[in-house]
Amino acid sequence: MTGAATNMRLKLPIICFILEIILIILFGVLVEYDEDTDARKWHSHNHSEYDNEFYYRYPSFQDVHVMIFIGFGFLMTFLQRYGFSSVGFNFLIAAFSLQWATLMQGFFHGLHGGKIHIGVESMINADFCTGSVLISFGAVLGKTSPVQLLVMAMFEVTLFAVNEFILLTILGAKDAGGSMTIHTFGAYFGLMVTRILYRPHLDKSKHKNCSVYHSDLFAMIGTIYLWMFWPSFNSAITAHGDDQHRTAMNTYYSLAACTLSTYGMSALTAHDGKLDMVHIQNAALAGGVAAGTAGEMMLTPYGSMIVGFLAGIISVLGFKYLSPILEEKLKIQDTCGVHNLHGMPGVLGAIVGAVTAAVASTDVYGNGMKDVFPDVAKGDIQPSAQGGRQAISLAVTFGFALLGGLIVGFILKLPVFGTPPDTICFEDNIYWEVPGEEEGHEGQLTAVRAEESQKLDS
Amino acid sequence: MTGAATNMRLKLPIICFILEIILIILFGVLVEYDEDTDARKWHSHNHSEYDNEFYYRYPSFQDVHVMIFIGFGFLMTFLQRYGFSSVGFNFLIAAFSLQWATLMQGFFHGLHGGKIHIGVESMINADFCTGSVLISFGAVLGKTSPVQLLVMAMFEVTLFAVNEFILLTILGAKDAGGSMTIHTFGAYFGLMVTRILYRPHLDKSKHKNCSVYHSDLFAMIGTIYLWMFWPSFNSAITAHGDDQHRTAMNTYYSLAACTLSTYGMSALTAHDGKLDMVHIQNAALAGGVAAGTAGEMMLTPYGSMIVGFLAGIISVLGFKYLSPILEEKLKIQDTCGVHNLHGMPGVLGAIVGAVTAAVASTDVYGNGMKDVFPDVAKGDIQPSAQGGRQAISLAVTFGFALLGGLIVGFILKLPVFGTPPDTICFEDNIYWEVPGEEEGHEGQLTAVRAEESQKLDS
Amino acid sequence: MTGAATNMRLKLPIICFILEIILIILFGVLVEYDEDTDARKWHSHNHSEYDNEFYYRYPSFQDVHVMIFIGFGFLMTFLQRYGFSSVGFNFLIAAFSLQWATLMQGFFHGLHGGKIHIGVESMINADFCTGSVLISFGAVLGKTSPVQLLVMAMFEVTLFAVNEFILLTILGAKDAGGSMTIHTFGAYFGLMVTRILYRPHLDKSKHKNCSVYHSDLFAMIGTIYLWMFWPSFNSAITAHGDDQHRTAMNTYYSLAACTLSTYGMSALTAHDGKLDMVHIQNAALAGGVAAGTAGEMMLTPYGSMIVGFLAGIISVLGFKYLSPILEEKLKIQDTCGVHNLHGMPGVLGAIVGAVTAAVASTDVYGNGMKDVFPDVAKGDIQPSAQGGRQAISLAVTFGFALLGGLIVGFILKLPVFGTPPDTICFEDNIYWEVPGEEEGHEGQLTAVRAEESQKLDS
Repeated sequence: MTGAATNMRLKLPIICFILEIILIILFGVLVEYDEDTDARKWHSHNHSEYDNEFYYRYPSFQDVHVMIFIGFGFLMTFLQRYGFSSVGFNFLIAAFSLQWATLMQGFFHGLHGGKIHIGVESMINADFCTGSVLISFGAVLGKTSPVQLLVMAMFEVTLFAVNEFILLTILGAKDAGGSMTIHTFGAYFGLMVTRILYRPHLDKSKHKNCSVYHSDLFAMIGTIYLWMFWPSFNSAITAHGDDQHRTAMNTYYSLAACTLSTYGMSALTAHDGKLDMVHIQNAALAGGVAAGTAGEMMLTPYGSMIVGFLAGIISVLGFKYLSPILEEKLKIQDTCGVHNLHGMPGVLGAIVGAVTAAVASTDVYGNGMKDVFPDVAKGDIQPSAQGGRQAISLAVTFGFALLGGLIVGFILKLPVFGTPPDTICFEDNIYWEVPGEEEGHEGQLTAVRAEESQKLDS
Repeated sequence: MTGAATNMRLKLPIICFILEIILIILFGVLVEYDEDTDARKWHSHNHSEYDNEFYYRYPSFQDVHVMIFIGFGFLMTFLQRYGFSSVGFNFLIAAFSLQWATLMQGFFHGLHGGKIHIGVESMINADFCTGSVLISFGAVLGKTSPVQLLVMAMFEVTLFAVNEFILLTILGAKDAGGSMTIHTFGAYFGLMVTRILYRPHLDKSKHKNCSVYHSDLFAMIGTIYLWMFWPSFNSAITAHGDDQHRTAMNTYYSLAACTLSTYGMSALTAHDGKLDMVHIQNAALAGGVAAGTAGEMMLTPYGSMIVGFLAGIISVLGFKYLSPILEEKLKIQDTCGVHNLHGMPGVLGAIVGAVTAAVASTDVYGNGMKDVFPDVAKGDIQPSAQGGRQAISLAVTFGFALLGGLIVGFILKLPVFGTPPDTICFEDNIYWEVPGEEEGHEGQLTAVRAEESQKLDS
Repeated sequence: MTGAATNMRLKLPIICFILEIILIILFGVLVEYDEDTDARKWHSHNHSEYDNEFYYRYPSFQDVHVMIFIGFGFLMTFLQRYGFSSVGFNFLIAAFSLQWATLMQGFFHGLHGGKIHIGVESMINADFCTGSVLISFGAVLGKTSPVQLLVMAMFEVTLFAVNEFILLTILGAKDAGGSMTIHTFGAYFGLMVTRILYRPHLDKSKHKNCSVYHSDLFAMIGTIYLWMFWPSFNSAITAHGDDQHRTAMNTYYSLAACTLSTYGMSALTAHDGKLDMVHIQNAALAGGVAAGTAGEMMLTPYGSMIVGFLAGIISVLGFKYLSPILEEKLKIQDTCGVHNLHGMPGVLGAIVGAVTAAVASTDVYGNGMKDVFPDVAKGDIQPSAQGGRQAISLAVTFGFALLGGLIVGFILKLPVFGTPPDTICFEDNIYWEVPGEEEGHEGQLTAVRAEESQKLDS
């Protein structure tokens, strides 16, 4: 693998142009405005302009959008020399994924006379699917070329849509915030891909696989935005009214509790009682992941807090004790620790969702049952059966993620995608024109040294 | 005070876990979903899902949330080696305070059959109360351990709730944007705490109590977010309709005018006619603080601009001339200058509110009087009496803030909280694992020096 | 031009105070709350508080506000030593412009009994006009004093309002997202100003006219915020209902497609197949600019994607090949490359708008025609005539921008505004108190060198 192999002069333009042209053609053939975005259709009915779905989903959409592009993008800038790639590749693969997801989800969510209908709800769903790809990106961060990432995104979006269709439509599970569909799927898919792409000599890039002071501050921008807008994320596509309101509030309290347990566990486990930025940047978000399934249910505020509290503990313990084991024993090189932020908390969220569903009762839900568990409300199934559906959904998700990651991992090993060699991972310089700074100083230092040495020699 | 004393290995986990477990228990016993978040209650009435309060408060809530976590957090990153603590402790104490405030405010805002009812409005109120704690944090920034901050937050939230209850419920004052309840209270509470915690040898940490180039840019992220979303802050819990709309607009113009007077005063007073980042980062926000009480009233756009204009002038003068006096004569070491941003502009806002209330008339307010001054609309009191209520409220707030700060200051002096010694304040390194960078370079420089010296010696 | 000439001690306070006092007086005489913000007027009608325009425009307003203050401000922080000025002057001139624009647009949008009525819609319009000034700021970035910028803003806002009035009211053109009124106008105005202010010896500041690693990351904050919220920008003042919804969605897909073509073109044209941050930071946004006029029309999703795709290609080609020619041959020193981000994509957007309008039909628009093309719906004109209006509007905008820029450029050459000399452009140090950091290291290096030299000499 030489410089020529990682050169993107032709590879990246070719894949970008081909993918975008295919997207444009497919959109031209298959995609139409929905009732709320089409001038003719919207005005063929008699309703107030203010009834348009735009006013009840768009603020949530924008919060989700910020999480995808700023949240995920900056969360990954913690690496000292990989900030351009973290934000920049996040930007690229997200821009591609949301278009491709519109098509894939459109197929499975039902065609209208052979056409996919789109509006703000499909935009949110596309951003959600994109989030899953970005989770997987976190696992392989620093070790993949942008072409590999686009190929991974293409396959992952497709598999996401199939898995989501099976869970929500065929199995009838509920997963508004995506503990299963987004987090568990994205994490285990990414972990399997990074396992297949195992790099035995990655320790040669080890000195770059860490943060510097300001890179950690940039990462905190990502963390805080994810944390703040997670209530909007989990509630973005629930039923309107109390459901959306309750989901946002449950997530808010889950995250707050998670933050306290994260700080406590970080001081308890880290070196000398000092807080570890890795924990704060990641584990404090686990409460949002873990409230992804049950957030829309009558989880109660204190129930949400318990879930968040546990999620923070599990996540810090994962970073401290499990990640090193995964790397050494299972050869899973998980750059961002997505197993601790999305994997385990996602599974916790799925389990909490299954239990909460199983104990649902009309006493608690009243007529609101029809929004949360429509099949239970109709009397088709018992709450315990709904709990069963949720549990099966988790298993199905594992299957898709691991099998999908396995296949896609091998595809990404093909030697045509310009992957970086083990010796120069975690380095912007391969794919970006990088201006001086740190180098600048070091360069000067070297110059000083050289100069002085010369003088001393003479 | 040794390294052992500031070690957080046990202290921080203990307080985090105990506080969170108490919160969970109290939430379990006392807190319930309100009408708009409970599935059964919401669906027991006949209304459109779109009438849910969520759609009319949640966008404001999210803007406030950004101010609390990004705005306050990054505003305080201006210190060169205290960025982790600024954002990180801000995050920790805010996550705790919003939970605790839910309970404290819930008590005073009225129980429903022994239960606290929560929804988006209580979430906004909890964030508001948290803002007050973060203002006090600004006064003691760099000189306190996270344990001290949590203890301070616990007491301050409680006192905030009592003071707020007296002002809004007993005295019947209006203070939608919290010039009194949030800014004046938070600032003078914090100033009193920092006075009690006076450090005679703080000059030994002086070289760290300043900014570097990039830390000032991070701080500008905080400033700009606070500035942009202040209209949402002041209008977040006013009455719906014209009130909310007018409050946002008044604040917008107050801030714009304040920015111009801040730039003018900064150039006029600072060294060599050069602008001072401290002024821009802080004083430009004073217009939001000063419009906190009167913003919802018929202040008129030009009235708002006059208020903002004056607030900017006062604030810059405070930074330039008053802060040094407070530090030298009164031994008040106010790290962020909260007296200039929240203290004096808060008092200005309270006075403007009292005057604006006193001159209210039915000619101007029409039937809108019932939203802004319900007691005046009912004929119970005259506008001048409402003005009197406002003035008394300011006095009460001063009393609570100063007395509360006095007591809490002495509590925080207890030698069990791991406070840093005077010699290493304003330093992340005590409580955080800090990666190299600045040190890196200095270390290299030292290495060069040592190496060369050796060669020279030999 | 000496240090004394660039000293802002008196110049900046004088202009800030005079401008703000004039604004306050004019607001006092001329400006009133509108129906939705005035307590008496709002309550004199019988309607739900929830019908207030605030709830249907304010979230869009806040997104636009973030673009103006964070988006534009941080986009320009890419320069290594001009971050304070980029964010800080952006802040100052935006705060002034939005007040002045309220008055100027208020005159032209129609007085009510001699008064300007203001509310959230006028706030959005004022922010839009401010955006135009900030585009021009991008062209002259690093080469102007804050006093010059305020003078430029004063004239440019006035001309913007006149041009906008001619386009939208007299000519009856449609331009919701401002491809013409905001982007084309702002870009060509700024390009003409920077042409008139041509600096023959600017190469003496060349070493500062480039980025460093972290300054590029700060700039990405600006880029991503602009990118994310552009759908809100283009849809902020369209008709309610399907129009607003469709505009946001068209812009979303245009931007996504633009991002892929930008990455492809950047790798294709840049050195060694490496991506160039300048392209990513700027060209990826061209899709938003180009969807500014036609976004509200029935452009179709794939149509939007084609427009974005082309905009990205044009923009990267402009940065790579056209900008150097403009600088060398036409003496246009365009610091941020606004010609590539706002100029050419704005013209593209205008042309797309004219064509899309010309092919409008009742088949496609149905009763929605009255919102998008009211004169066509009324039968006053044919769609082709609407297309003609759009084309004429582009020509008028060019005329105003170039002539206005010419005159204002000569005004800014007056030697009283404290413009920096050619040798110290792109440098915060002239107008700001700048703390050490980069200098710190260099200083230390110099010290090491000096020390060692001494030892060697002795």
